[in-house]
Amino acid sequence: MNDIELQLADLLGAGAVVSDEGLRERYLLDWTRSTRGEAAAIVRPSSVADVARTVAWCSARGLGVVPQGGHTGLAGGATPIESSREVVLSLELLNRVREVDAVSNTITVEAGAVLHNVQEVAAQANRLFPLSLGAEGSAQIGGCIATNAGGTAVLRYGNARELVLGLEVVLPDGTVWSRLRALRKDNAGFDLKHLFIGTEGTLGIVTAATLKIFPQPRQKLVALIGTPSPQAAVELFVDVRDEFDASLTGFELMAGEALSLACTHLRRARPLPGLDPYVVLLELSSPRAGGTLTEPLLECLGNATERGVVTDAVIASSDHQAQSLWEIRETVPEAMLRHFPQVSAHDVSVPIARMAGFIEQLETMVAERWPQLSPLLFGHVGDGNLHLNFVSPQPIDAEVFGELERAATSASYALVGELGGSISAEHGIGTHKMNLFHRLEDKAHLDLMGTIKRTLDSRRTMNPGKVFPRGG
Amino acid sequence: MNDIELQLADLLGAGAVVSDEGLRERYLLDWTRSTRGEAAAIVRPSSVADVARTVAWCSARGLGVVPQGGHTGLAGGATPIESSREVVLSLELLNRVREVDAVSNTITVEAGAVLHNVQEVAAQANRLFPLSLGAEGSAQIGGCIATNAGGTAVLRYGNARELVLGLEVVLPDGTVWSRLRALRKDNAGFDLKHLFIGTEGTLGIVTAATLKIFPQPRQKLVALIGTPSPQAAVELFVDVRDEFDASLTGFELMAGEALSLACTHLRRARPLPGLDPYVVLLELSSPRAGGTLTEPLLECLGNATERGVVTDAVIASSDHQAQSLWEIRETVPEAMLRHFPQVSAHDVSVPIARMAGFIEQLETMVAERWPQLSPLLFGHVGDGNLHLNFVSPQPIDAEVFGELERAATSASYALVGELGGSISAEHGIGTHKMNLFHRLEDKAHLDLMGTIKRTLDSRRTMNPGKVFPRGG
Repeated sequence: MNDIELQLADLLGAGAVVSDEGLRERYLLDWTRSTRGEAAAIVRPSSVADVARTVAWCSARGLGVVPQGGHTGLAGGATPIESSREVVLSLELLNRVREVDAVSNTITVEAGAVLHNVQEVAAQANRLFPLSLGAEGSAQIGGCIATNAGGTAVLRYGNARELVLGLEVVLPDGTVWSRLRALRKDNAGFDLKHLFIGTEGTLGIVTAATLKIFPQPRQKLVALIGTPSPQAAVELFVDVRDEFDASLTGFELMAGEALSLACTHLRRARPLPGLDPYVVLLELSSPRAGGTLTEPLLECLGNATERGVVTDAVIASSDHQAQSLWEIRETVPEAMLRHFPQVSAHDVSVPIARMAGFIEQLETMVAERWPQLSPLLFGHVGDGNLHLNFVSPQPIDAEVFGELERAATSASYALVGELGGSISAEHGIGTHKMNLFHRLEDKAHLDLMGTIKRTLDSRRTMNPGKVFPRGG
Repeated sequence: MNDIELQLADLLGAGAVVSDEGLRERYLLDWTRSTRGEAAAIVRPSSVADVARTVAWCSARGLGVVPQGGHTGLAGGATPIESSREVVLSLELLNRVREVDAVSNTITVEAGAVLHNVQEVAAQANRLFPLSLGAEGSAQIGGCIATNAGGTAVLRYGNARELVLGLEVVLPDGTVWSRLRALRKDNAGFDLKHLFIGTEGTLGIVTAATLKIFPQPRQKLVALIGTPSPQAAVELFVDVRDEFDASLTGFELMAGEALSLACTHLRRARPLPGLDPYVVLLELSSPRAGGTLTEPLLECLGNATERGVVTDAVIASSDHQAQSLWEIRETVPEAMLRHFPQVSAHDVSVPIARMAGFIEQLETMVAERWPQLSPLLFGHVGDGNLHLNFVSPQPIDAEVFGELERAATSASYALVGELGGSISAEHGIGTHKMNLFHRLEDKAHLDLMGTIKRTLDSRRTMNPGKVFPRGG
């Protein structure tokens, strides 16, 4: 053990310090394997008091604290950067479910609870915790809150932010700010929990949260729908939203090619035989059992077909089939990464009304200016969120690909800006988008963010080098 | 005109300064008539640039700025306090609807737009702007956002906060922070709009907002339901919520006496002839026309009746009848104020699971300790929000009433605190609850609020004496 590790072992007990070289690796490398760091020490406190003690200790010494959850972030926000000046603080041992309240419809969990476990505990109480994303088997609640995680249920239930009623947070000086209120309405003073949601551990460490849970849907209807264009997909979305409102729980868009890739990867036939350029995965849910959704959906699709907005559709006739359609959608990212050796992946949002125009402009632009590249698109149309990827259909030199994708990326972000969009819909800023963010963002906004950061974290010890440049 | 008025007339044009004595009164007195102030000047800027100019001018001179909307606040947060050092800034001339987007389902409006007008503009686009409250004919959007207004649609659509996608704000130094993003997902940097929602104009002035709009419900079902106890009402709520989820758009509780008072005031017969101690007003909505809600509701009420949770019910058979049931609920506050010369009115929330226990403890406590008082309750059970009033059924000396109600109020707030509740569910802190708030609130929370206030409003010119004590 080095000197910092020894002192932290004194403070927290030797068991709280991860010093075994083999074990350490897990805390230094992200799931994306894109970022590897080093750290002066790695600790796993087992109580909120120990988190507070660690943070205060680091603050007093000017050591950085890097909060860590399930290592599933996609922006490099949880990896240490500077070896000798940073302590990794894993929340994984703080993983209790403190309370489930099926009357208030709230659940209070600690930051290290794995998302999938929280879903399970809610289900045992006959309730739904709706946050749902590919990495839910590893992602921890604290990380989900710190990154304001999105996923596939945002359309109906909102991002992680919308699910948080109360928080317990360790502030940068080690103070515990505890507001685990299970209240639907509370206008007594400032609602400061929002300072810690989506701020990627740069203002404090979430140690527990009181979250909303919901009635479980008893009926789900899933359909895969072929559509001739992004514009048609958006028109269909507006139709279905007007008809079903909160019963519309999923509206995902995939380029036809993405569907084919996923089906090939899964060794399945394409559920829609036609080569529709775009395909929608739609999900309707109802708290009541019985087929009250099928007829109005068929009517809606019939009207849309007459107007040329829908070319083909298949409605799942069983839960198994419904799951299998969702599996195709969820396989797209992996299938893409396996099929194309080089992928330039982005996560942007635009107002829904500008989504179709954005896709069309983007496709034209890439075809004209970088014909060696091809955009491969999928995303959450109902949230205005597009996962935009540039791939090269033909083998291409890595350096050449890099040059092309940098140019295409830069032009795409400029377009996103013109359309009033966001350069990071879901994944956050972390380290990956930090420079881009500071280059493109309004000065007044950066100034205000900087003011808040300097005030709450005056010693600059909270997750240094994330969101803000080191010392910036 | 005094010196400050003359200088502001120079800055903004003479037309922007309200100097006529008769006109001034309107800006110095709240709707509740509980607070009257004086001001060095009253200005009505007609552009965001003029708001910014006024705020910067006041900041440079250390003059307080009191932002004003429709004067319908219930916490005294929009009335000037110290005559010579404060400028009232009315937003009422900034009242344009800048954009309605029925595809993105967003509406962008200026702060001075009257809530009812915003609802109307949305309706013209076949959309619903759901924020709805008694004062909607006067309340302005800026004030609704600054106070995070609640109302009768919170159960399904959330408070004002949940409806805000983007904001434009004039900061205390006159900088315009403009983030009118119409995005459902945006994790690029801190989501700082929450610093200005519900902070009652103490950190900046909201000048415009991009808000969510929704599909219009095409079917509504309203029922008035008698129930033997608060516990039974909460049990019914849980049943109905599980069965209808987002289709449950209203669940209001009234003490039987409140129902009787409202009916007497409206010169109508009680819709439920029995003297049920508590009555629920329930509303279900569906985006689809046709009676898909009636049968499951009848089944639900049938089961609840068997279990003794419901004693009687009437379901509105027409829109007219539905409105008339809502009118009874909305008349309760006025009927109460007319009937009882002295009313001590409060607005608290507790977790839903503790609502029934709270009411029962409260009733027992008041009956035992202050038998001259009687609690008269109504509220939004689905939000855990209770409007709690102490009245004196028998004529009583004002001073005696004051003593009794202060004791009962203090004990009630203590109970709210024990149950993890809030001393201000909807109305905010303003001046009315400022001392109470600072006495009861956690130190860590007050400290963090104070830090934010000192940082963003370092000259303490934004709505001085509201939420925070003057100079505190």
